[in-house]
Amino acid sequence: MLTQGMLSESSGSVTGAGALLSILRDGQARTRAELVQLTGLARSTVSQRLDALLSHQWIVPADDAISSGGRPATAFTFNRGARVVAAADLGATHARVAVTDLASTVLAERRVDLPIDRGPEEVLGWLVVTLKELLVETGGSLCGVGVGLPGPVSHSSGRPVNPPIMPGWDGFPVPDWLGSRLGAPVLVDNDVNIMALGEHWAARRDVEHLVFVKIGTGIGCGIISERRLHRGAQGAAGDIGHIRVTTSDEVVCRCGNSGCLEAVASGAAIATQLSAAGVDAHGSRDVVNLVRQGNTMAVQFARQAGREIGDVLASIVNFFNPSVIVIGGDMAEAGEHILAGVREVIYSRSLPLATQHLSIRATELGDRAGIIGAAVMVIEHVLSPEAVDLVVSS
Amino acid sequence: MLTQGMLSESSGSVTGAGALLSILRDGQARTRAELVQLTGLARSTVSQRLDALLSHQWIVPADDAISSGGRPATAFTFNRGARVVAAADLGATHARVAVTDLASTVLAERRVDLPIDRGPEEVLGWLVVTLKELLVETGGSLCGVGVGLPGPVSHSSGRPVNPPIMPGWDGFPVPDWLGSRLGAPVLVDNDVNIMALGEHWAARRDVEHLVFVKIGTGIGCGIISERRLHRGAQGAAGDIGHIRVTTSDEVVCRCGNSGCLEAVASGAAIATQLSAAGVDAHGSRDVVNLVRQGNTMAVQFARQAGREIGDVLASIVNFFNPSVIVIGGDMAEAGEHILAGVREVIYSRSLPLATQHLSIRATELGDRAGIIGAAVMVIEHVLSPEAVDLVVSS
Repeated sequence: MLTQGMLSESSGSVTGAGALLSILRDGQARTRAELVQLTGLARSTVSQRLDALLSHQWIVPADDAISSGGRPATAFTFNRGARVVAAADLGATHARVAVTDLASTVLAERRVDLPIDRGPEEVLGWLVVTLKELLVETGGSLCGVGVGLPGPVSHSSGRPVNPPIMPGWDGFPVPDWLGSRLGAPVLVDNDVNIMALGEHWAARRDVEHLVFVKIGTGIGCGIISERRLHRGAQGAAGDIGHIRVTTSDEVVCRCGNSGCLEAVASGAAIATQLSAAGVDAHGSRDVVNLVRQGNTMAVQFARQAGREIGDVLASIVNFFNPSVIVIGGDMAEAGEHILAGVREVIYSRSLPLATQHLSIRATELGDRAGIIGAAVMVIEHVLSPEAVDLVVSS
Repeated sequence: MLTQGMLSESSGSVTGAGALLSILRDGQARTRAELVQLTGLARSTVSQRLDALLSHQWIVPADDAISSGGRPATAFTFNRGARVVAAADLGATHARVAVTDLASTVLAERRVDLPIDRGPEEVLGWLVVTLKELLVETGGSLCGVGVGLPGPVSHSSGRPVNPPIMPGWDGFPVPDWLGSRLGAPVLVDNDVNIMALGEHWAARRDVEHLVFVKIGTGIGCGIISERRLHRGAQGAAGDIGHIRVTTSDEVVCRCGNSGCLEAVASGAAIATQLSAAGVDAHGSRDVVNLVRQGNTMAVQFARQAGREIGDVLASIVNFFNPSVIVIGGDMAEAGEHILAGVREVIYSRSLPLATQHLSIRATELGDRAGIIGAAVMVIEHVLSPEAVDLVVSS
């Protein structure tokens, strides 16, 4: 039976430290004896792995010593402050950066208006300068950088792929460019994917199938299937903004087709509709402000946009059968009006079996879903058992 | 290090035989030495596990002895004939049963016209009698029964849940009823789910994300996500037949809503359209025959139905980004006309990134996708490493 053990241990004597850290990541303090019981490992093995984690500061002795009859036993707990994470959520018109701990708690944050079409060097240049300022504020050792971009991103290379609203960004080597300036590994994904990741991780971790819909200047969604991000065959999954919702040829979309969801129901589309009706509105922020002020026409248009989005989501509910739909993005701040339109159509059009336990809610993370998701993307990568084992055994 | 081994081996001394069988299931013959090299296990452990698999006849010595310089080494190979599997595909109007080997090869088969609305006792009664006849023909030890039903099925209990076209079946305990009469475990699922499973397993095993669309009396799809069946939160995923494709209130669907895909593009819908136009057609089989005979109106209606289905699938391509869409069911036999309509709309409406490498094909299994899927469902269950370990160690 020794050989089975040797097989599992083949990649280094402290392999398995990552698995132990996974247990401790819930934040609960545990003694050696408790960990021996939880894992079935020998006390000597547990001790060896705890030493490795302690030496890398991923765990710390807990303050509360637990007495087990004899001398007090030391308990250990996850050290969420062991490293810091840099997170950036770059939107069409504004950008947000933050530094978080290893539990995705924001330690310092900046938000500015910064159009993505200024190009990668200007936008990422600002990102580097701002992150360095934030890192001075927070201190700590940077373990990785997570970036969300408002367009398709190749998951493997981290480069944007033909992003429609990001001139100059196509194929730009974001990870290399940032990595060489910040001295840490960089992970990049589509902004809606990271929002879905953030919402799932921080607020709905027990949900198996979740769809996060971002409604802002554009419309897109991030999909959690069996608790993991579903990217699809080309990483293009979730691009619902260009689903046709009207056969009218009058509404031309920036994608070149007509009748796309985004062309009739995005924040930009509602602003256009309001302008045409004589109401001063230039983007999704203006629409949100008008709705909040109770402008009747803005409220009506927002509700109708919710219905159009609900029509697309009703199909998705029948096809995918999620248990939670989360509405986020700028327009989610227009409150219950959008949500009411979405619910109205989904509950009237989707199958009873699929809507019986379906929850349709606004994001619990507000405008921080993206930034928290970007941090989570890095944390899950850095603290994966394989990554921890690699660091510990090197 | 011994303890790690003990942990992995805790459930019995031959645990791990299932993992070894998983390697051999590809049908290739391998020697002890090759298996030692592949697994990293000790020669004594491999021998012990091979003995356990041999004693249960799951593997057999291969005919071809391989010389390794000295005396010829015995090679072992998966014994696909070790057990037989019963598979049933019960459709709205006809039923098919088969007995297969452990590689899902059909050994004996029957197909009859048998409307599902005759109720569970009559339909399942026929199933039991016919399967017993087939088992006499094939011989072999029955290891399980797989059944596909044309309606929603609770995955955990194997009971139909409010199936719209199956009067008398709601909540019927199919697994118990059949199991007590056939003396083997029974697995039940929705017919489209098992078709997706069969197609993926038998013809597209390397594909990560696949959508199998069944077009017959009704319309539904089975979803493979990351090589696994996606059932959704309530097991309702894939029910695309009731997605609204027209806002016209004239086309009322059996579900109570109007404008559903099924009400305009299923075989039954086309037959209704043909009848209204004075062409004699009573169901999807008639439509298929008319299309094959070159009836112009039937061809036109089939192509238009393909376009309607394509419209729904275009949204699904944007949302889910599969790499393969497979068209199956009765109407798939109407050949290229339906497929042409589907392709026309998907390629014009879906995003270029999502369609660039998208393959849209007719099923490679023809009308056997369901029966093979039902067998695969059982085989994957019976030959899972956990199930094999359990049998071997008991």
